[in-house]
Amino acid sequence: MAEDMVPGTEEQPKRLAMVCWSSDLDRVWPTLILATTAAASDVEVDIFFTFWGLRVLQRNDRRITGTNWMQKGESLVDRGGTDHLKLGKIHFGGAGTKMIKKLAKDYKVASPTELMEMAMAIGVRMHPCQMTMDLYGLKSSDFIDGLQPSLGAASFIDMAAKADIQLFI
Amino acid sequence: MAEDMVPGTEEQPKRLAMVCWSSDLDRVWPTLILATTAAASDVEVDIFFTFWGLRVLQRNDRRITGTNWMQKGESLVDRGGTDHLKLGKIHFGGAGTKMIKKLAKDYKVASPTELMEMAMAIGVRMHPCQMTMDLYGLKSSDFIDGLQPSLGAASFIDMAAKADIQLFI
Amino acid sequence: MAEDMVPGTEEQPKRLAMVCWSSDLDRVWPTLILATTAAASDVEVDIFFTFWGLRVLQRNDRRITGTNWMQKGESLVDRGGTDHLKLGKIHFGGAGTKMIKKLAKDYKVASPTELMEMAMAIGVRMHPCQMTMDLYGLKSSDFIDGLQPSLGAASFIDMAAKADIQLFI
Repeated sequence: MAEDMVPGTEEQPKRLAMVCWSSDLDRVWPTLILATTAAASDVEVDIFFTFWGLRVLQRNDRRITGTNWMQKGESLVDRGGTDHLKLGKIHFGGAGTKMIKKLAKDYKVASPTELMEMAMAIGVRMHPCQMTMDLYGLKSSDFIDGLQPSLGAASFIDMAAKADIQLFI
Repeated sequence: MAEDMVPGTEEQPKRLAMVCWSSDLDRVWPTLILATTAAASDVEVDIFFTFWGLRVLQRNDRRITGTNWMQKGESLVDRGGTDHLKLGKIHFGGAGTKMIKKLAKDYKVASPTELMEMAMAIGVRMHPCQMTMDLYGLKSSDFIDGLQPSLGAASFIDMAAKADIQLFI
Repeated sequence: MAEDMVPGTEEQPKRLAMVCWSSDLDRVWPTLILATTAAASDVEVDIFFTFWGLRVLQRNDRRITGTNWMQKGESLVDRGGTDHLKLGKIHFGGAGTKMIKKLAKDYKVASPTELMEMAMAIGVRMHPCQMTMDLYGLKSSDFIDGLQPSLGAASFIDMAAKADIQLFI
């Protein structure tokens, strides 16, 4: 990429577009670390929350969501909210999530919930996927405050095509 | 990316290059949704099917593939074809795959098989990875019709370097 | 991307920036294949090893690492080094890793350890993530020789913004 050589483009901020596809702690964590770090360096950041990743945007105090029994059942086994994310792999018979959170705290790595607040505060744009909202039966009121309007895949493609960095995490 | 400011480039269609690395239903689904959505907006789309992802291209009626016992064994536990994809994680003791397919149907989200046909019809280019074909002992006749010739990693790198969006899914 | 139309940029080598996030054999393998293939075509390659992926850089003969009991425990269940990578999914009751390695050998696909040496030899730049080093209690002496200095997320963002291809694997 050599845009800085093209006259008239020097002033354009760099852009980062990410897909947050998973609600696994070990995927959400790097997503939010990259987002906050990039935004702190004046990179414009958009994150599209889709599939399992949509649950990350759920309020921590929301327990059962959805309107039909399948959606309600799904919401029970796949609890949303940044406080409830778990490692994608079993470590130490399930104790891994607690352990890595403790390690992170000892080494002053911000938690996903703290990173999410930080990300909002410095202007990271969070977009829920409308199709996944329909599948899960999730409504805007199930989500944390401060999100962008929900989007479809076409809008994400637009966004990604304008970005300098695209990551599917 | 500011190509639209560079004289002479306004007419170039945008390009999306994806690696389909997995045969998990929850990864193939977004891959095909992004592919069809992008192609419908006149983005040129290439998908490189490699590793587990190669199985996605297998005909739904092909059961045992490969020439040696390891390849045949692999093909038995890792059934290919868009009709047989399963969620990457166990949900509801294995009932998750059925449930999410039912949910998708209720909400009129096209199935992977339908999306694959749609993708072909609107010009998404599907490239099988030659190295993975060798490893699995898969032949062109094991695949669905309408694919591009098989490629190596070097060709994918070329393709990706020319694309505006690259995603490893 | 249409840089080759912009005067003065024709000579710039293409760049590939990857995040190696996982230590799963089936993710590290494509990462190293893409890296060596790209570098062999004069693409400049940077890999940022973070989270589980950091273990890939560990010396094969290093067994227990870290300074506190949690770090030591983690290092025991998550053995590092390119010789010890395992498939992300259980195949054939755990025999899958052996099988795929045998298949790869039969079909003359280089092993991760061979690919890592090759990558070093042709100039692929490997960057350990400093934050993950702190979490794991890993020191430079735990790693193979020939790495770049450790980096933070901000440096990776810089690197990725300059690259033509970015992949999170």
